Amino acid sequence: MLFKKVLVTGGAGCIGSSLVERLLNDGAEVTIIDNLSSGKLEHLESVIKNPKLNFIENDIKACSIEDIVSGKDVVFHLSANPDIKYKNGDETDKDLKENTVATHRVLDAMRIAGVKKIVFASSSAVYGEISDYTPENAALKPISLYGASKAACEHMISAYCSMFGFQAWVFRFANVVGGKSRQTGTTVLTDFINRLKSEPNELLILGNGLQRKSYMTNNDCVDGMLFGLEKSGEAFNIFNLGPDDWIEVNKIASVVSEEIGVHPKLKYTGGDRGWPGDAPISMLNTNKMKALGWKPRHTSEEAVRIAVRALLNK
Amino acid sequence: MLFKKVLVTGGAGCIGSSLVERLLNDGAEVTIIDNLSSGKLEHLESVIKNPKLNFIENDIKACSIEDIVSGKDVVFHLSANPDIKYKNGDETDKDLKENTVATHRVLDAMRIAGVKKIVFASSSAVYGEISDYTPENAALKPISLYGASKAACEHMISAYCSMFGFQAWVFRFANVVGGKSRQTGTTVLTDFINRLKSEPNELLILGNGLQRKSYMTNNDCVDGMLFGLEKSGEAFNIFNLGPDDWIEVNKIASVVSEEIGVHPKLKYTGGDRGWPGDAPISMLNTNKMKALGWKPRHTSEEAVRIAVRALLNK
Repeated sequence: MLFKKVLVTGGAGCIGSSLVERLLNDGAEVTIIDNLSSGKLEHLESVIKNPKLNFIENDIKACSIEDIVSGKDVVFHLSANPDIKYKNGDETDKDLKENTVATHRVLDAMRIAGVKKIVFASSSAVYGEISDYTPENAALKPISLYGASKAACEHMISAYCSMFGFQAWVFRFANVVGGKSRQTGTTVLTDFINRLKSEPNELLILGNGLQRKSYMTNNDCVDGMLFGLEKSGEAFNIFNLGPDDWIEVNKIASVVSEEIGVHPKLKYTGGDRGWPGDAPISMLNTNKMKALGWKPRHTSEEAVRIAVRALLNK
Repeated sequence: MLFKKVLVTGGAGCIGSSLVERLLNDGAEVTIIDNLSSGKLEHLESVIKNPKLNFIENDIKACSIEDIVSGKDVVFHLSANPDIKYKNGDETDKDLKENTVATHRVLDAMRIAGVKKIVFASSSAVYGEISDYTPENAALKPISLYGASKAACEHMISAYCSMFGFQAWVFRFANVVGGKSRQTGTTVLTDFINRLKSEPNELLILGNGLQRKSYMTNNDCVDGMLFGLEKSGEAFNIFNLGPDDWIEVNKIASVVSEEIGVHPKLKYTGGDRGWPGDAPISMLNTNKMKALGWKPRHTSEEAVRIAVRALLNK
């Protein structure tokens, strides 16, 4: 066990709830704060009665977060607007409010409460367009408001490390998939499953289907975070987290179809990407985590198949 | 003349007011919005009666910015909290509000008004600790809240370019000095001048005096921005802007003393930096601007001396 008293923001989310299970199994006292805007209470079914879990339904943007942070050994800051997709008419300040400004609130509550260790869930989206295996020290050039906000959070965390003696572990996740779905919004998997359930003979794919991305399961993601946290002790630690392979969106469509048992005709919205701000290629250089001795158990295709089966309750 | 109708946010600031003069001389119609929190009306004395200048005293964080942006060809977004220094007890969200959130307001007003060209005043502070000539594609690791906020702005601008067809010119400035002083807060020059005027026999230097930084005059800064803007046409253009030399803080102290005509004993607060978040070495690789055919007219030492003389009305 690394820490005794842990706060997990966004602990009812897909990744957060898996992390909370793991931390409780390791013997930690865990406090969750989650406003259930994208997380779900059902994700916590297996742990909600554990006496070492304290679940607080509240919003880190509005509540007295110092009181909640106080006395903790570490904060896993996972709460965020999880939806990278932007469509015309959406508010453009959602990521700014939910990610950038909310993260400052968490950081400053930690500073005031004297809690100085933070683990932050960042994203490969900070890099923007990438064409090759991208290492952690690449320049960031985000093409989405989501990616821009995650990068902004990283930079504030970096400043808090230098200015206020914080220690931070930032993980830039590949796409994370699992058997849990969000309260609102879709992922490529839930999108495909929903569409095929209502129309099994046809599947509309956003973009041209040639987008290539890396996927890992939420369990691998949690495992990687805890491994990196245990094995690295700089003031500001930053890691790409994911497999070093990828799966094409067309292949995802065939995995989903296969698992449901349908043979849809594929249709395409066209263009090289799914939405404005979508990175058609998302592939991380994971040498830094490998050098520590860690890689995910599953390939991108295995991760997708595991998640589809879990989402279908197979 | 590059543009006919220009908005300059922060146009009453040290850099903004020099830019406005230059744009008016080039024949542009210029609108300024400035809340005069750090800018001063006296900086605009030479141009305030120019019929092509429209000065709006208002705050971009609170006013109806779409109306002001509407119809412009380009926005020079210079308004910001200009003071990188942080001392115990200061608010930690000043840069977040004045820089990050305010820049989103400007960007989104531009999006709504259909104005898609932005020039942004960024800073070498985005890089954090640097030990060598740092190029534009270096990884950002800010050590100050100010640097983190400027990086956050750059990333939002990058996303607006990809998502909404914006075109942007981002300039990461070395330290900019000139004969204008701020409404509040100090720079190293005004700090030294004020101290020596009240106590000519002693000068307290923040840090150990060995900090080495690059300086350019506000006129060189404006010249570089307009040159880069004219000569580069990518969707997202980013440039380091400054000289490729530096001056030690101890040397700045001797230049200031010499110009005032005093011989103070130097005292030091100690440590390798002036304040939490200060980068002791700030030196930019300026090859990208040089390749376009531009370099500042003055060295760092010349820039400092020019500014000191102007501040002393010599």
